[in-house]
Amino acid sequence: MATFGDIGVAAGINILFAVAFLVAFAILRLQPINDRVYFPKWYLKGLRSSPTHTGSFVSKFVNLDWRSYVRFLNWVPDALRMPEPELIDHAGLDSAVYLRIYLLGICRLKIFVPVALLSWAILVPVNWTNNTLEKSLATDKVQYSDIDKLSISNVPYGSLRFWTHIVMAYAFTFWTCYTLRKEYATIATMRLHFLASERRRPDQFTVLVRNVPPDPDESVSELVEHFFLVNHPDHYLTHQVVINANKLAKLVKEKKGKQNWLDYYQIKYSRNQSQRPVTKTGFLGLWGETVDAIGYQTAEIERLSKEIAEERERMKTDPKCIMPAAFVSFRTRWGAAVCAQTQQSRNPTFWLTEWASEPRDVYWDNLAIPYVSLSIRRLVIAVAFFFLTFFFMIPVTIVQSLANIEGIEKRAPFLKPIIEIPFIKSVIQGFLPGIALKIFLIVLPTILMMLAKFEGFLSISSLERRAAMRYYIFNFVNVFLVSVIAGTAFQQLDSFLHQSANDRIPKTIGVAIPMKATFFITYVMVDGWAGVAGEILRLKPLIFFHLKNFFLVKTEKDREEAMDPGSIGFNTGEPQIQLYFLLGLVYAVVTPVFIPFILVFFALAYVVFRHQIINVYNQEYESAAAFWPDVHGRIISALVFSQLILMGLMSTKGAAQSTPFLIALPVLTIWFHTFCKGRYESAFVKYPLQEAMMKDTLERAREPNLNLKSYLQYAYIHPVFKNDDENEDDDDINAKLEESVLVPTKRHSKRSTPLPSKVSGASSPSLPNAVSENLKS
Amino acid sequence: MATFGDIGVAAGINILFAVAFLVAFAILRLQPINDRVYFPKWYLKGLRSSPTHTGSFVSKFVNLDWRSYVRFLNWVPDALRMPEPELIDHAGLDSAVYLRIYLLGICRLKIFVPVALLSWAILVPVNWTNNTLEKSLATDKVQYSDIDKLSISNVPYGSLRFWTHIVMAYAFTFWTCYTLRKEYATIATMRLHFLASERRRPDQFTVLVRNVPPDPDESVSELVEHFFLVNHPDHYLTHQVVINANKLAKLVKEKKGKQNWLDYYQIKYSRNQSQRPVTKTGFLGLWGETVDAIGYQTAEIERLSKEIAEERERMKTDPKCIMPAAFVSFRTRWGAAVCAQTQQSRNPTFWLTEWASEPRDVYWDNLAIPYVSLSIRRLVIAVAFFFLTFFFMIPVTIVQSLANIEGIEKRAPFLKPIIEIPFIKSVIQGFLPGIALKIFLIVLPTILMMLAKFEGFLSISSLERRAAMRYYIFNFVNVFLVSVIAGTAFQQLDSFLHQSANDRIPKTIGVAIPMKATFFITYVMVDGWAGVAGEILRLKPLIFFHLKNFFLVKTEKDREEAMDPGSIGFNTGEPQIQLYFLLGLVYAVVTPVFIPFILVFFALAYVVFRHQIINVYNQEYESAAAFWPDVHGRIISALVFSQLILMGLMSTKGAAQSTPFLIALPVLTIWFHTFCKGRYESAFVKYPLQEAMMKDTLERAREPNLNLKSYLQYAYIHPVFKNDDENEDDDDINAKLEESVLVPTKRHSKRSTPLPSKVSGASSPSLPNAVSENLKS
Repeated sequence: MATFGDIGVAAGINILFAVAFLVAFAILRLQPINDRVYFPKWYLKGLRSSPTHTGSFVSKFVNLDWRSYVRFLNWVPDALRMPEPELIDHAGLDSAVYLRIYLLGICRLKIFVPVALLSWAILVPVNWTNNTLEKSLATDKVQYSDIDKLSISNVPYGSLRFWTHIVMAYAFTFWTCYTLRKEYATIATMRLHFLASERRRPDQFTVLVRNVPPDPDESVSELVEHFFLVNHPDHYLTHQVVINANKLAKLVKEKKGKQNWLDYYQIKYSRNQSQRPVTKTGFLGLWGETVDAIGYQTAEIERLSKEIAEERERMKTDPKCIMPAAFVSFRTRWGAAVCAQTQQSRNPTFWLTEWASEPRDVYWDNLAIPYVSLSIRRLVIAVAFFFLTFFFMIPVTIVQSLANIEGIEKRAPFLKPIIEIPFIKSVIQGFLPGIALKIFLIVLPTILMMLAKFEGFLSISSLERRAAMRYYIFNFVNVFLVSVIAGTAFQQLDSFLHQSANDRIPKTIGVAIPMKATFFITYVMVDGWAGVAGEILRLKPLIFFHLKNFFLVKTEKDREEAMDPGSIGFNTGEPQIQLYFLLGLVYAVVTPVFIPFILVFFALAYVVFRHQIINVYNQEYESAAAFWPDVHGRIISALVFSQLILMGLMSTKGAAQSTPFLIALPVLTIWFHTFCKGRYESAFVKYPLQEAMMKDTLERAREPNLNLKSYLQYAYIHPVFKNDDENEDDDDINAKLEESVLVPTKRHSKRSTPLPSKVSGASSPSLPNAVSENLKS
Repeated sequence: MATFGDIGVAAGINILFAVAFLVAFAILRLQPINDRVYFPKWYLKGLRSSPTHTGSFVSKFVNLDWRSYVRFLNWVPDALRMPEPELIDHAGLDSAVYLRIYLLGICRLKIFVPVALLSWAILVPVNWTNNTLEKSLATDKVQYSDIDKLSISNVPYGSLRFWTHIVMAYAFTFWTCYTLRKEYATIATMRLHFLASERRRPDQFTVLVRNVPPDPDESVSELVEHFFLVNHPDHYLTHQVVINANKLAKLVKEKKGKQNWLDYYQIKYSRNQSQRPVTKTGFLGLWGETVDAIGYQTAEIERLSKEIAEERERMKTDPKCIMPAAFVSFRTRWGAAVCAQTQQSRNPTFWLTEWASEPRDVYWDNLAIPYVSLSIRRLVIAVAFFFLTFFFMIPVTIVQSLANIEGIEKRAPFLKPIIEIPFIKSVIQGFLPGIALKIFLIVLPTILMMLAKFEGFLSISSLERRAAMRYYIFNFVNVFLVSVIAGTAFQQLDSFLHQSANDRIPKTIGVAIPMKATFFITYVMVDGWAGVAGEILRLKPLIFFHLKNFFLVKTEKDREEAMDPGSIGFNTGEPQIQLYFLLGLVYAVVTPVFIPFILVFFALAYVVFRHQIINVYNQEYESAAAFWPDVHGRIISALVFSQLILMGLMSTKGAAQSTPFLIALPVLTIWFHTFCKGRYESAFVKYPLQEAMMKDTLERAREPNLNLKSYLQYAYIHPVFKNDDENEDDDDINAKLEESVLVPTKRHSKRSTPLPSKVSGASSPSLPNAVSENLKS
């Protein structure tokens, strides 16, 4: 029951934090030494060279130019200045559309600004000019806050004023739907335009075929070729079978880790030649026999190189390494579009075809899962996720009960004297339980990604989409519902089951919602405002970069790897936005005071993420906004949920006669959703033949002599064969590759070291560097 | 609370009725005069000629051969003798698969026989050897029947014996799922085999294209041709635009009606030349000016002929008659399969393609509905059906209140003396209210078909499937639920909403279910046993045929029309079977005594419908068992429902600890459903390219010089242009048709008069008779 004062104090503290983060960012980003942390995208694009190369020694690390500090907020207009088409060109459509989700929350003609204006102009006065709460204070000594005076709680029981709220609910619903429809149409157009204007890419011609049926007489490769020569005689061009290189990839990764340690010890030794570094052979170098570190790591690397060579040898001969899947390429986009959209064989679980993702988006490990296994995995994961959502408190509680003072004393008696110090004791008692929960919440996105991987999705983008959906559901249950009604998620579930559908679900929540407004305002400030400001500071990457730079970096290439910013984290970011959409839609009618806080979040997050996308993140793949239908669906579900809550709330406020008017809202909203789905969704899942034919015809006219086969031949080889630096191991594959004619890449990268899978791939398949280099020489 | 005795009496009465119907049938079917009523299918196939043509005058009408009466039950083995492949050939796959639904209920290795055996062997003894009911009779004077002693009600509260029921529930679920999976696989194979072994049919090459976008410069026909020449250049062959002939069809139908009346009056006059028949010009000939009937009808027919001619003239010139839809035919099945399964244009609401149904299955009226209208219609119909299901008692009650004695007396005072006679008064009071309900229930399937038509489905088969689904839902709510828990459907809905999800829905029903066993046993006997026996008697068609035969029939063709048996009525028959499946699955664990009654129904219905399909019904279209996924889905939903009910029942019987064991059942069942859907459903909605390519290749090898274009050119013309007998009106169309080369029909019908759309069409498109006749002459 916070008053305006309390909210003000909380807001003050959080604004202080946010401002502190922003100022710290503004200063840190100007230091040349941090340049690679705050502008890695430009380095990766080869458009920025290290400022540490020039100037005096000090100015290599610290920016001494006072004028740049004056303009320390310049990054905001900078971030906003880049126009959208350029942004799409710079960072891809995925990122640009991701930003539009924030924009959907704030901007002119988008959802929340008109909603905020309307609700402040109409609902706040309507709520304010009652005195229900004052009266009940006088009679029942009920506590209330100033915030509550502006909310629906202040309207008396059975008042006719509720009609205002109902009309507003209609207005907000229609406005939201109108905006959503417009946005869906815009993004569908953007996607189609993006796909149409794209240069030639291997995935436009390629279809992934899975579940090739086993055949005793023919190899998978022969089988695929025969099948498609028979069934797509005019269109089939070539194919690449999928090789199970998971073990090889693991070995290569392990070798790289050892190499890192070797580098670390060598640098250490070169700095302090008096003492050769030592290590232990056991787990993580913590125990076991003590040996000379450099010698040990060199020996390990040699052992792994040998194993890798053996594994390569094995893969060449062992037919078990060939998975019953292949990337089949066609002469025309038309042929590929046809094959991807049709059923091939009589048995619908064999010869499954779907569009191949971009080569860098493919999740290689899952390509060989058979149909029945997939369907069982789906069930297992659904059950597992249910338990994760509703019973996740159980392990956390167990850890908490183990991690108390008595538990520690019992298990580690030697720590007793330290723990018994009153200060340390109180710290443990205060923090440990919270930490167990916090750690769980931090690893949750990773757990969800693992679930999605186990479920068998085939591309990184679809993995992230599924993980995002689950994270949203988890948040909805464990953040939203649990905050609104006290008790764990499982207790909620139990009581939902034991009480009535329209009593419990909308009414209980409906009654609790207005009372929780202040809690969620605080939540938005802590999680939203301060969280977003923390995002721009990039504290963790900053520290890690400097550590790596100090301990591991030997070459320019190592430095580039150390600064790799990764991609934007759709699977954690999008569910957060959706939670705010949910809060905004639920409180729009109930407690209009809430909306401005959400608006500030959206505005701040928009600017920050625009900056980050322009300067920092390096998208790993491009799915051309394939996630939009999910985003749309979740906003719709939040809208329907808010309408049900309002119905429940109204019926407890003596306005039950309004139910028939309100019930039309969810019906209409759901109908609207199916309408949008039918109208626009296919732009995200299908590829119209008309477009394909158009691009084919254009291409034939422009480049009549194009050798498509050589262009596609090695587009889809496992990254472990591509990114490997040890060219001597790749002889067999390189030899093959050299036979083919090289198609020159159109975009010339200025990057100092080759790292093909990150930046190229937009206009040409990333051919192994070895080949490029061999051909240049 | 019926005892065994009561059930025995009810069973006796119903068996008596059933036997009476069967005996009546056995006798009536042997009379030559009824031959066309009981064997119309054979007449329509041209394999049976009228027995009335030979023999003495009396034997034309009555069968005097006593030996045939001895073998009066011969029709049963006759019905069962025809092997399935022959049945498919004789009546089509739809009918054969329809029979398999009954078979699924009974036969060896199918659902209910093992269930019945198991439940009688295990559950009945377990239930019987308790004395809960006897005890409660002693203490609480609770009424119970012998039936209840065999049901789960007899097991004491919290008994460990409930584990038997849980194990049985698992056994039944696994058995049902196993059977369903096997059946789905069998039927998918049958369907694919049927499609693969079919002769050439126009729908294999043809795709229906809808929502052709408007173009100011080109006509629809030109637009379609250009679009497909560009986007399917190697495969496009020809197309036929869809003409809006709804008005013409209406005029033709009206003319036919007048013609019937003219025939009637002419026959009447020829029999009694002393008096020229007269009629009145008003509504239904009931009032208005009295005129000479023959002259009046002749004038009317002339007027209509003129109007028809004008309408034809208008259709030739008016571009509004051309709908933005077309049947596009391709050179190969492969091309058609590709076009039907892919998206054509960037805007997914234009150029919608789907497989064309068979020409005789097309529902022509709906071909021109645009996308937005379709989507609105769907919403309107969903809302309308909701109200129809839950509020249908309201109009019925209003009619009932109007149709009471006082109401009639008020509105029609002149009837007062008649009504006041005690006997008539009691009849009115006893029957009128029931009649209002009965009439509603009789017209319900028609209403549901109208809803489906309004919703915009494109083929008669899909109309029937949708109507069947709705009828099942209606039955579930208004027969099953309303019988189990007293009160109207709307009261149910209201109380469901106001009570808890797991309290109300499974518990209330769970508690009520065992008590309603006797009611449903009676229901099965009345609706099932006697109903099916009534079905074979065909009382209504019998009467109508003889009436028509007496009053209207002039030519052999008229007689054929009078005997037309129609098709099997999937939209009313299938929901009935599904209701029995639901009852069987629900009672399998709760009251095993119930199962044999269901078994008798399935066995009887199987024999009867097998006879009817062989001898009577003439399927209008062939959808190759496209309805099976619906059937499967409904059985699964009944299974899940029965599991939920059992959970509710268990928790009220002090076996709540069993809930975790039982909750796995619906989860597994639903997973099983998605598995089957993924594994088999595509066989019912897609057409694999492999199959298409195979048939194309075979055909090219067999008939290299086939003129496909002429074969397909006029396959899809509106039936009003086909069935019209007045060749003089068809000049313009016939002229066109004659230009094309005629492909001879392979199956030679022996039918005396041509009625092409009913019997041909299986192997060749039914060319207008006019053409065939013109070419013969």
